[in-house]
Amino acid sequence: MMNVLIIFGASGDLTSRKIIPALFQLFSEKKLPKPFAVIGISRTRFTSAEWRKQLKASIQKTMKDPDFSRDWDQFESIIHYFSGDVKNPEMFFELNCFIKEIQKENGEKNAEIVYYLAVAPILYTQIIQNFEKTGLAAKDFPDKYGIILEKPFGMDRQSAEDLNRQLHSVFQENQIFRIDHYLGKETVNNIFALRFANTIFEPLWNRDYIEHIQITVNESLPVGRRGPFYESTGILRDMFQNHLLQLLSITAMEPPAQFDAKFVRDEKVKVLRSIRKSKYEIEKNMVYGQYVKYREEQGVHPDSLVPTFIALRLFIDNWRWKGVPFYLRSGKSMSCQTSQILIQYKKPPHWIFENEIQRKREKSSSDPEGNSLLIQIQPSEGIRLNFLSKVPGTIMLFQNSELTFSFGNYGKNKLPEAYQRLLLDVFSGDPSLFARNDEVEAAWDIIDPFQNYIDSAIRRNISIPLYESGSWGPSASDLWMQKQGRTWLNLCPIIDRPEKNGSY
Amino acid sequence: MMNVLIIFGASGDLTSRKIIPALFQLFSEKKLPKPFAVIGISRTRFTSAEWRKQLKASIQKTMKDPDFSRDWDQFESIIHYFSGDVKNPEMFFELNCFIKEIQKENGEKNAEIVYYLAVAPILYTQIIQNFEKTGLAAKDFPDKYGIILEKPFGMDRQSAEDLNRQLHSVFQENQIFRIDHYLGKETVNNIFALRFANTIFEPLWNRDYIEHIQITVNESLPVGRRGPFYESTGILRDMFQNHLLQLLSITAMEPPAQFDAKFVRDEKVKVLRSIRKSKYEIEKNMVYGQYVKYREEQGVHPDSLVPTFIALRLFIDNWRWKGVPFYLRSGKSMSCQTSQILIQYKKPPHWIFENEIQRKREKSSSDPEGNSLLIQIQPSEGIRLNFLSKVPGTIMLFQNSELTFSFGNYGKNKLPEAYQRLLLDVFSGDPSLFARNDEVEAAWDIIDPFQNYIDSAIRRNISIPLYESGSWGPSASDLWMQKQGRTWLNLCPIIDRPEKNGSY
Repeated sequence: MMNVLIIFGASGDLTSRKIIPALFQLFSEKKLPKPFAVIGISRTRFTSAEWRKQLKASIQKTMKDPDFSRDWDQFESIIHYFSGDVKNPEMFFELNCFIKEIQKENGEKNAEIVYYLAVAPILYTQIIQNFEKTGLAAKDFPDKYGIILEKPFGMDRQSAEDLNRQLHSVFQENQIFRIDHYLGKETVNNIFALRFANTIFEPLWNRDYIEHIQITVNESLPVGRRGPFYESTGILRDMFQNHLLQLLSITAMEPPAQFDAKFVRDEKVKVLRSIRKSKYEIEKNMVYGQYVKYREEQGVHPDSLVPTFIALRLFIDNWRWKGVPFYLRSGKSMSCQTSQILIQYKKPPHWIFENEIQRKREKSSSDPEGNSLLIQIQPSEGIRLNFLSKVPGTIMLFQNSELTFSFGNYGKNKLPEAYQRLLLDVFSGDPSLFARNDEVEAAWDIIDPFQNYIDSAIRRNISIPLYESGSWGPSASDLWMQKQGRTWLNLCPIIDRPEKNGSY
Repeated sequence: MMNVLIIFGASGDLTSRKIIPALFQLFSEKKLPKPFAVIGISRTRFTSAEWRKQLKASIQKTMKDPDFSRDWDQFESIIHYFSGDVKNPEMFFELNCFIKEIQKENGEKNAEIVYYLAVAPILYTQIIQNFEKTGLAAKDFPDKYGIILEKPFGMDRQSAEDLNRQLHSVFQENQIFRIDHYLGKETVNNIFALRFANTIFEPLWNRDYIEHIQITVNESLPVGRRGPFYESTGILRDMFQNHLLQLLSITAMEPPAQFDAKFVRDEKVKVLRSIRKSKYEIEKNMVYGQYVKYREEQGVHPDSLVPTFIALRLFIDNWRWKGVPFYLRSGKSMSCQTSQILIQYKKPPHWIFENEIQRKREKSSSDPEGNSLLIQIQPSEGIRLNFLSKVPGTIMLFQNSELTFSFGNYGKNKLPEAYQRLLLDVFSGDPSLFARNDEVEAAWDIIDPFQNYIDSAIRRNISIPLYESGSWGPSASDLWMQKQGRTWLNLCPIIDRPEKNGSY
């Protein structure tokens, strides 16, 4: 049995920057199943040799490994190029013959085939229809075919449902791998570890002890070349529907009975479905803004009202989380690149040290802060637990102290790249860390009302608050929190990772 | 109003090594009340000038401060020497005149007088009786007099009661400061902070989440010059009745309503009174041993059967702790000097990662460890929280990881010496961190049965297990734990403190 990965969109950015490097790394570490073949498909008229040469040049730049060339020469024999137009059904028959040839060369009668749609979502429908027409994928052979899709999975609830319906005409749900690379990140998986392999966190992981939760995914880069994409897609679809809601659901989920695809995704869907629908309270639960120079970006409308920063407040209406606000925010051109989750615990129910301080005629200590747990996901990965300790001296005064742990402290084991982990999971048929159809649809149910509100504001030409590049977003965002008696943790990554690698 | 500290036992070790350096430090930091005088009393025929000179020479050795001489010259004007025999009532009248003279020099009509009994306990009774006879202390003037006593407070329940009765004939309980320098240590006070100024520890601080607790106070030094004392007192009276039971009661107490003397000591006494009395189960709850060369120490009987290492298992029979064993151990000539408290949490109630590992055909991970919190008290002061994190890679395997915090990381604030803190508390009349009469008696109730058992074993000439110097005690100790399915944390201090000072 041979494994074949077929990449639609071979000449695209994603293929050369993420997919091929991840495959190369897995190959070097001898983790790919054997025999293995990669076929890249694109309209460009390349030979395999030309494609290999181009990939090598582009990947070599980012690799510091002195053995790169030797490893690459072994690797490139398994990658092939096939030029064709995905809109043409005939191409799929030819592709089938090409696969057979490669099988023959490897002396393998059968192949497990995984398709990777690294193309614009607009082409998804056509490709899926051509699978159906040509019989090159079929849900009758669930072990033989798989498909990987990149976000966005639709543009709203309706289009996501349509896409899922099309996919299900050719694939069974467990053959479909909707990739959200956040789910392949070590620290995201460490949230599972933190919560469910330890006993000290989970008992406090609820409304009795947690005051609120902040999930921040900021980028320091401006929109850059992605102007046209950004104008049509926007930050809610680009970041919230997938990454931020994934982080929220992993943070808030009940413990699954087993760490496997069905149990884990069932629990995540339950969280998403329990989020209070904010149809009539959008204004209370969202602030947004646009960075000052956004309108000067290439491909952006000079009067654009599209937000580049959004903060949402969501409530999960279940026994565990009732009344605990979850703050989600994401922005472009922010002070720094950071993805982090802050668990803000409540304050002590009773402060026993007040009298002692008065007795000793010291100034009263300010209101004590609650404890907090910061899970830093990127660019460096680590956790920080804030607590109060005594100020050295002869009286009970307190100071904020930190217990810190950096995942970068693992000397020998480099943190694996998210795509490596996820591709391996695909080849071993494990969809735990991929979004399921109902999960995607439930996420759109949350996003749609906010997106509709923004679309309507744009239509009505309502002005948008601006913020400076390099800031933490519009001042409205800080004021909004202040009014609720809370503060954003505006903190650039503080947990260092000594050795950098290409995880992001 | 003038403050006068009168030290009985002026020529002793404790005075020159602890009391005077602590006073000197407080003086330099301008923390002593003013005017202030120290009067040292001993039988040696010294002048004040001679005593000052001797103290200066002995203290200078341990101080690295370049300004020492300048500071000392200012300090020594407040210390005086008075030679006399405490057994002689006449001496107390003369002392009274001496105090009056010093008051006159300072232009003060009234004085608050604190007596520090830094003498052998055998002299306590005589001194107290002489106070009574000469009227030089009286419970009718609770604001005018105080008394500080060093451990041991009695040799068993009966003698402790007798001593308390004598003290109460001259002093009210709140005039009596029974010093246990462990209670002045920063980290010990940080246990109060950790537990009651934070919300993340207290909810787990009970039988639902904690499997067992270990309290270790080991010394690397052998008995040395203290042979005769050790032969008659033994490690239970020297270490367990005070330091170890104090650590236990602070670790196990309910949150006091206020951090003040009455509330705190009420809660501590409640813990001690709730400890299960082990009269008939001593053998199950104690192991002991003697280091190999103990019998060669000066003043030790060549066939001595006195233990130099003891480990106890105690149970606190209340709602919070029922069924959670508290292991207390202390030894001489051990692998290293260390005082630490280990909170061993239970394992997760259900291990969700088993199937995933089997599915991926990896070797099953070994039984996961429970989390633990290590509070290190000396020689370096810090805390370490152990938890499981994911091993970087494409499968859910786990490794032990550590969140650490060192109190030595406070750059500018040196940790104050325990005696400084405690002396200040005496001068401000705060007995929170001193042992109360009922506390002392309750502690003896726990220790007496174990001491009786050892005394009886010695009488019956039962051989004692030996252990090598530099080890973690007799092998019986490890076996005993093993049989209970547990392991000692045999760990020399791992949390570093960059700058050393004289805290110990």
